[in-house]
Amino acid sequence: MKTLAVCFSLLAAPVMAQTPCCATGDLGVVIERATGSLLVVDRSERAAIGRIEGLGDLSHASVTFSPDERFAYIFGRDGGLSKVDLLSQSIAARTIQAGNSIGGAISDDGKLIAVSNYEPGGVKVFDADTLELVGDIPGTSKTIGLVDVPGRRFVWSTWDSGEAFMADFSAPEMKVTKLGDVGKNPFDAVLTDDAHTYLIGLFGEKGVTAIDLWEEAAEPVRFLQDYGKTEDDLPVYKMPHLQGWAFTEGQFVLPAVGQHELLWVNRETLEEVDRTPTHGQPVFIIAQPASPFVWVNFATPLNDTVQVVDSRNHEVVATLTPGKAILHMEFAPRGAEVWLSSRDDGKILIYDTHSRELVGEIPAQSPSGIFFTARAHRTGL
Amino acid sequence: MKTLAVCFSLLAAPVMAQTPCCATGDLGVVIERATGSLLVVDRSERAAIGRIEGLGDLSHASVTFSPDERFAYIFGRDGGLSKVDLLSQSIAARTIQAGNSIGGAISDDGKLIAVSNYEPGGVKVFDADTLELVGDIPGTSKTIGLVDVPGRRFVWSTWDSGEAFMADFSAPEMKVTKLGDVGKNPFDAVLTDDAHTYLIGLFGEKGVTAIDLWEEAAEPVRFLQDYGKTEDDLPVYKMPHLQGWAFTEGQFVLPAVGQHELLWVNRETLEEVDRTPTHGQPVFIIAQPASPFVWVNFATPLNDTVQVVDSRNHEVVATLTPGKAILHMEFAPRGAEVWLSSRDDGKILIYDTHSRELVGEIPAQSPSGIFFTARAHRTGL
Repeated sequence: MKTLAVCFSLLAAPVMAQTPCCATGDLGVVIERATGSLLVVDRSERAAIGRIEGLGDLSHASVTFSPDERFAYIFGRDGGLSKVDLLSQSIAARTIQAGNSIGGAISDDGKLIAVSNYEPGGVKVFDADTLELVGDIPGTSKTIGLVDVPGRRFVWSTWDSGEAFMADFSAPEMKVTKLGDVGKNPFDAVLTDDAHTYLIGLFGEKGVTAIDLWEEAAEPVRFLQDYGKTEDDLPVYKMPHLQGWAFTEGQFVLPAVGQHELLWVNRETLEEVDRTPTHGQPVFIIAQPASPFVWVNFATPLNDTVQVVDSRNHEVVATLTPGKAILHMEFAPRGAEVWLSSRDDGKILIYDTHSRELVGEIPAQSPSGIFFTARAHRTGL
Repeated sequence: MKTLAVCFSLLAAPVMAQTPCCATGDLGVVIERATGSLLVVDRSERAAIGRIEGLGDLSHASVTFSPDERFAYIFGRDGGLSKVDLLSQSIAARTIQAGNSIGGAISDDGKLIAVSNYEPGGVKVFDADTLELVGDIPGTSKTIGLVDVPGRRFVWSTWDSGEAFMADFSAPEMKVTKLGDVGKNPFDAVLTDDAHTYLIGLFGEKGVTAIDLWEEAAEPVRFLQDYGKTEDDLPVYKMPHLQGWAFTEGQFVLPAVGQHELLWVNRETLEEVDRTPTHGQPVFIIAQPASPFVWVNFATPLNDTVQVVDSRNHEVVATLTPGKAILHMEFAPRGAEVWLSSRDDGKILIYDTHSRELVGEIPAQSPSGIFFTARAHRTGL
């Protein structure tokens, strides 16, 4: 709710003295995983403008934003769902909605927040204003890969039973549909940038499963039959995030599981077209907006390095060593800068993407995920 | 500049009484062409929250936004460049920078505003904070199709001399480079959504010219050799806007000039793959975000109609008659709604994109262009 009180509260909040802020289009939050706090940052100022504490266990956390880019919804590992007001820099609402949560999403109209749970499993849906429970889809299976789909819909998969489901909130009555059996132990899933294809990575068997969400009742399709973990691979230090798959130049770019490689897949044919040897096991592969480049970070112990790869010829064009334990990368929405979290240096590092030079840094307490409010305007996050 | 004064000014401005607003992510402006005014709208409230007057001749105007989504830059036909503060709802700065201007762009870092001029020709570049002139690229030729390109760069074409140029502001000294000869009388140009290809429509001869902006010194390439106006075509009631080309499913969708058709072009091969007969001469073709659909409006006298076309099979799936003189369409950034300006009904009409039903309307004075602040986060607008 927008009220005049917002502006009064700016005067009262001491943390705002540094950089008072009303416009919200260039704000962001950084997860401080060890302290359960959130650093509020201003992209234009390249500065922290406040800290919000008391958010529980943020050792694995993700964030979505309201359409006005004022509120951040924080999904914590302990099942906590917090609504944070970036203007007053305070917690507007908070609920412990489950025992162990893995992520969430906001509906395309900004009215519903869905959370996917490990413990006790299932999906819960909340009113975005009040965090009141408005939909409960219980399950005995851990849920993974929850994404928003246009039309007040959400899609997710289940680890134990290997299924995918859609919940549709476009009518007064919620409708839940099983989309199909997708394979053994899906560990993460991602929606393509056009919301066309839901891609599911499997842990219990090889291959990737795709579901066409533009068709009424599309069958799951298996591709990349060799993709996944095998016993003679290197140990998997960290499961790659499928949310880190990049979509560029008519391709998907995937992290090879347990190997030092990127896989390039033709988006039309779903066939592998090339591989790129990398410095380590890729974790996030993120497309630099409006450019041919993807940026890649790596699993421990090789996580001091970031590589830049050209999606046209699949070659590494730059290898940077920005700092210790680079856990996440977030681009300015038009690609001018990338912000890196260096957990063990206690810093956010800001690079110009064109010169690839350091242009700023911000102290932070064990920073991990960085989330800019521009995400409010994107589908499938 | 962000100052505490913003918040005080909210209290003082009477127009804000209706819906006080601090967050800016869901705001927008509507050009009121007859009165030279701007209606400030709130997407979440589906309401107007104020009007800003005194912006000169807005009979042909376009708008860009600052990265924090607080300031709108208005490019008016009379050469006026106005910087409008959406929070205080006032004109923060204004300059008459030329006799007749056609559009502008903001650099990827949000620091520079470039304006392309008809009279006297050339391009001028201004400091985004102060509107102080920081770069002047005079020319005897009318400039068209000015776009921002990542790396503090701008690209444009020239009507009289048939050339394309790039200005690069990444170093302390501005550098202007001729990209090539592009054909006779370019009338508009557009950048693909990945900033890869600059596409130029020609009035003086047939064909479309493409320049690869990811290559260092790419040659202009001509394609669609039959595209353009011929003498036996229908009269051209309104030149289509190339900014209305949509990019979807590996295709460009173009308006046929002077004909009742859309052209579908394969993005890789630059070959025409299909045509769709339409209700009238297409003006804007806009992709509904995260969907297979494009929405099309039409030139007078058939401009009471909007059609929705499926990019998979190229078929018209819906024909709507929302109101009189539908001049523009703007989607909510995640595609849940589309806002239409009905000039001769004096209304903004809001449609749900999934039900395709009217869900709201807002009175406006001869509305034309609608611009949401989410554009701040997109390249090439």
